Amino acid sequence: MAKDTVKAGLIGFGTIGTGVVKLFKNSAELINAKSGIKVELVKICDLDIKRDRGVKLAPGMLTTNVNDIIENPEIDIVIELMGGYKPALDFVTRALKNGKRVVTANKALISKYWEEISAASKEGDAEIMAEASVGGGIPILRGLDKGLAANKIEKIMAILNGTCNYILTKMTVDKMSFDAALKEAQQKGFAEADPTLDIEGFDTMHKITVLSRMSFGKGIKHEDIHVEGIKGIDYTDIKYGQEMGYVMKLLAIAQRCKEGINVRVHPVFVPQMNLLASVNYEYNAIFVRGDAVGDTLFYGKGAGEMPTASAVLSDVIYIARNMASGAKHVRYASKAKAEKVKVLPIGETINRYYIRFNVVDKAGVMGEITGVLGKHNISIASVIQKEQNQHAKVPVVFMTYAAKEADVIKALKAIDKLAIVKEKTVMYRVIE
Amino acid sequence: MAKDTVKAGLIGFGTIGTGVVKLFKNSAELINAKSGIKVELVKICDLDIKRDRGVKLAPGMLTTNVNDIIENPEIDIVIELMGGYKPALDFVTRALKNGKRVVTANKALISKYWEEISAASKEGDAEIMAEASVGGGIPILRGLDKGLAANKIEKIMAILNGTCNYILTKMTVDKMSFDAALKEAQQKGFAEADPTLDIEGFDTMHKITVLSRMSFGKGIKHEDIHVEGIKGIDYTDIKYGQEMGYVMKLLAIAQRCKEGINVRVHPVFVPQMNLLASVNYEYNAIFVRGDAVGDTLFYGKGAGEMPTASAVLSDVIYIARNMASGAKHVRYASKAKAEKVKVLPIGETINRYYIRFNVVDKAGVMGEITGVLGKHNISIASVIQKEQNQHAKVPVVFMTYAAKEADVIKALKAIDKLAIVKEKTVMYRVIE
Repeated sequence: MAKDTVKAGLIGFGTIGTGVVKLFKNSAELINAKSGIKVELVKICDLDIKRDRGVKLAPGMLTTNVNDIIENPEIDIVIELMGGYKPALDFVTRALKNGKRVVTANKALISKYWEEISAASKEGDAEIMAEASVGGGIPILRGLDKGLAANKIEKIMAILNGTCNYILTKMTVDKMSFDAALKEAQQKGFAEADPTLDIEGFDTMHKITVLSRMSFGKGIKHEDIHVEGIKGIDYTDIKYGQEMGYVMKLLAIAQRCKEGINVRVHPVFVPQMNLLASVNYEYNAIFVRGDAVGDTLFYGKGAGEMPTASAVLSDVIYIARNMASGAKHVRYASKAKAEKVKVLPIGETINRYYIRFNVVDKAGVMGEITGVLGKHNISIASVIQKEQNQHAKVPVVFMTYAAKEADVIKALKAIDKLAIVKEKTVMYRVIE
Repeated sequence: MAKDTVKAGLIGFGTIGTGVVKLFKNSAELINAKSGIKVELVKICDLDIKRDRGVKLAPGMLTTNVNDIIENPEIDIVIELMGGYKPALDFVTRALKNGKRVVTANKALISKYWEEISAASKEGDAEIMAEASVGGGIPILRGLDKGLAANKIEKIMAILNGTCNYILTKMTVDKMSFDAALKEAQQKGFAEADPTLDIEGFDTMHKITVLSRMSFGKGIKHEDIHVEGIKGIDYTDIKYGQEMGYVMKLLAIAQRCKEGINVRVHPVFVPQMNLLASVNYEYNAIFVRGDAVGDTLFYGKGAGEMPTASAVLSDVIYIARNMASGAKHVRYASKAKAEKVKVLPIGETINRYYIRFNVVDKAGVMGEITGVLGKHNISIASVIQKEQNQHAKVPVVFMTYAAKEADVIKALKAIDKLAIVKEKTVMYRVIE
């Protein structure tokens, strides 16, 4: 390459964009040395170019016209940090078709529109990198694709949403209700004013889609993934779980199985001894099992201005270093994983279960419930029966052995119709 | 590159070498797809080419003549898995001077002879990669150099030796003596017949040298690093530490400080809430703090046939992929870090301390000890005084606030001369 400078343009000057600008300014020497070539941020596009973000910029750097970046022949790398589907998809695909390298943190976009983005990348003979899209500053995509390159990935279990993990940690440690914990998370800036995307599990689903595609194959669609969030989790269940030696976490789980792959997002009881149980507050962690390496875990801050900027810059440096060393591009996604995979419906999965029934306090109740469970091939590992409360209903908590989800759903439906049952039964999955 | 196959030769057909051969055979399709080019293992050199390692080889692959690999113009990548200083240094530098890419797991070699290896690499316009040298299968070098590329690394704290961690875990969990735990580790294959290199802390020292050089700068010599192993640790101290909320681990610590860097290896009391306290048995973990990313942790199996082979192959794939994409080489070590750094003597470091005195059981003893500590600017955070035992001496355990190591050494020397002291005082450092 004859060039002596790699030039980057940034679309989206929000929190993370500001972090990226700060890192470009404060760590310029490190970034250039690591890249083996000078890397310069030359343009920043945002609708709002008036607001003071606390960083000094060279005159002429700001623009409201995205074409100053994606149609600019001087710019080699486009950093997309605007988020959302539209108009990000248009900007990213146009940049790729123009042969630009794209670095993005947009998990919603790449998880939903990977085929379109892939096609644009091929058309422009370009490439896209997205380390910042999953796990914030944790170098997990690099870890999976390169560090564990020689492994067939067998299983991923991950805490991928800092908002949810903060709320669940507060509920567990400080015995708070869901609503109180959410309110505190919002006050501390760990949850948005509208927290839907996080607490309903969709953000986690976007991220596990990216990890699963990288690890298992293509063709994984949002709608194939079973998603339950943490909204409305009752502190009661967190407490009973703790008594049984478990901690509640919102996990994304993806694993290879005989019939395809099994990908889902839902609250899970994790044994206290499992490292994931010790991942608290806004931290994220990704457990990965590979056929050669065995069990690994990657831990760090899953969001925030500087951790996410750290991941964005790691991609920029990677691309710049490849350009400096004369590589055309070293694609991120592997051909090995291009096989289409089938996602198993949640009903077909096998899990252990925590089940809390609310029943009348009279003789024979336990027999009636265990009878229905037995009929549906569900065996009981342990039981907690609590004393009567003021409403004359008793919680009875079962921990089951491994059972098929469809059987559990059927059994609970039957049990909830019994006269002895006073409230809808509560069920959570449990991992070893 | 006109070639359509990248050819590799392996020197050292021991446990890890066998793992590498297995992975080449069993994961050929994955390795080729990830590399974007066919990668083939064509030669294996070992002194013993008769022993059955349980893997089938093509005829003519085995040789006892190392020149069949390092002087073979067909071979692009030399994998060195023989270990030790000699003759590995000769083989590696000759291979590099011949322009071969070298992949090694040899932490002793690269930690001691980096300058010689660097010079040979420059002379041959070659490169060397060593992911398998630290943390077994954990992709930590890649994580540090590439994943956290945009970070100034501030601190590393790591469990880097599976043998020591296995022994300390057995002592903690099963209340075993050091000797009994070592014996069990040997029986289970987690410790060598001669465990010196591991239990004296030298293996950990080799590994933190590699991590420190990558993170802080060059010029770090073995003899600059303070090393204490785990030999002779008394279960008594593990027990008292637990009572105070701490777990004993052998840590390598490297951190930036005003005067240079602070690198050492010794047993440490880690708070039970710290993730490192939950890293048990043969597992390793590396905690890394970067200025942008904040706190991260990388966890996995630190040794063993297949985990280490996984790391070796990740380097092979990385090199092959770069070759396939036309990059000359994308060097691992960064120019940014080439500054020479000064290693702080252990006496200059500031730590908290666990100190166990063995004293006569009479009035005034506590006053005498705290008087000496106070004179040396050592403040006490908490004390456990245990009841008298049959030998008429009492253990008194202090947890101090942060103090300068040189002061602590002086104070303990003075205290050990007092008539009230019946046995040499025991001291361990403590992290927050």
